[in-house]
Amino acid sequence: MADWLTSLQTDTPQEGFELAIKLARKGVGYTQPSAEVRDKLRPEYAENADSLTAASQVVATHYQTVAAANHYWK
Amino acid sequence: MADWLTSLQTDTPQEGFELAIKLARKGVGYTQPSAEVRDKLRPEYAENADSLTAASQVVATHYQTVAAANHYWK
Amino acid sequence: MADWLTSLQTDTPQEGFELAIKLARKGVGYTQPSAEVRDKLRPEYAENADSLTAASQVVATHYQTVAAANHYWK
Amino acid sequence: MADWLTSLQTDTPQEGFELAIKLARKGVGYTQPSAEVRDKLRPEYAENADSLTAASQVVATHYQTVAAANHYWK
Amino acid sequence: MADWLTSLQTDTPQEGFELAIKLARKGVGYTQPSAEVRDKLRPEYAENADSLTAASQVVATHYQTVAAANHYWK
Amino acid sequence: MADWLTSLQTDTPQEGFELAIKLARKGVGYTQPSAEVRDKLRPEYAENADSLTAASQVVATHYQTVAAANHYWK
Repeated sequence: MADWLTSLQTDTPQEGFELAIKLARKGVGYTQPSAEVRDKLRPEYAENADSLTAASQVVATHYQTVAAANHYWK
Repeated sequence: MADWLTSLQTDTPQEGFELAIKLARKGVGYTQPSAEVRDKLRPEYAENADSLTAASQVVATHYQTVAAANHYWK
Repeated sequence: MADWLTSLQTDTPQEGFELAIKLARKGVGYTQPSAEVRDKLRPEYAENADSLTAASQVVATHYQTVAAANHYWK
Repeated sequence: MADWLTSLQTDTPQEGFELAIKLARKGVGYTQPSAEVRDKLRPEYAENADSLTAASQVVATHYQTVAAANHYWK
Repeated sequence: MADWLTSLQTDTPQEGFELAIKLARKGVGYTQPSAEVRDKLRPEYAENADSLTAASQVVATHYQTVAAANHYWK
Repeated sequence: MADWLTSLQTDTPQEGFELAIKLARKGVGYTQPSAEVRDKLRPEYAENADSLTAASQVVATHYQTVAAANHYWK
């Protein structure tokens, strides 16, 4: 797979959050590499509250990693 | 997306908790950017015990991050 | 919301555990602010094994935070 | 509630694991204080693989806390 | 219960992973002590993708503990 | 089982992410050792949004471990 992640460092907490979202999506992408299939699945879960909560849980877990890597931007 | 997170520092543990809630919601917001759709979903899961527990789990995960960032407000 | 959390410090590991339970419930309370609705939901999940396990999971996550904040009461 | 947790320190990793199990059960006990109800629920989830896995997940989370509290028994 | 865990130290990251698997199974074993029942449940969840993912999640959580206990084998 | 993990060290954050994916799959592989069965299950969950999110959650948990082992590649 092409390079998509060269550093966990970000300038701000918000950019770190957006990196956590990217990591969460990549976790899906490695299991389901077809963008076509992923696009087909998106409407289904993006309108399901529990699916959205589960996605937010993955982001929260990655954000712990990114925030630690950035010493919480202090 | 406009700036919504400039620091993980808060004055009190309670404000930190409220920041964790904001982070949990943002995790949903990045996946489902339509406020209209999110508003439609809210009644459904806000009256479902398991959905509320899952939402509380995301908050707990973010609260670990925020609390660490604030040295547990000590 | 009125002040409900001024410190993560507790005198004993057990009081810390009870604080973790409070935090787990507050995570629900911010999403579903109606005590009436929450009371209506309680019997349903308090007699469901999987719901109770999920609630215990949230407590476990918060307990990590509280225990770290108290240096594990050492 | 009577005292049930005075320390996170244990002599061995195994006793720490057993403390984690106790913590997981207490997380349930605070939500469903009736031992009678909990006993009624037990057969149901103790023969359900996914329920057992979820219970094991709570134990794993508490074990992180107990192990850290004991410096991993080193 | 007989001694089954005397140390979290392992020689290699792989042995640590195998210890994490043991811990995950013990978390089940304390809740369902009957090997006969556990054996009966195994085929059911070992052929269910979501059950396997949940089991892998427990292992991942324990692996965090074991890896930290071994200073990540460095 | 043959050696498959000799170190948690990787050269880059992306290789660390790929190691986390390997760890997540190994967590499944120890529970369901049959590659044939795993291959049969794959299409089912690789086209299910919630299954993919759950898989991504396991990866996120392992990535915390791998990132810590590498001092966040700093």
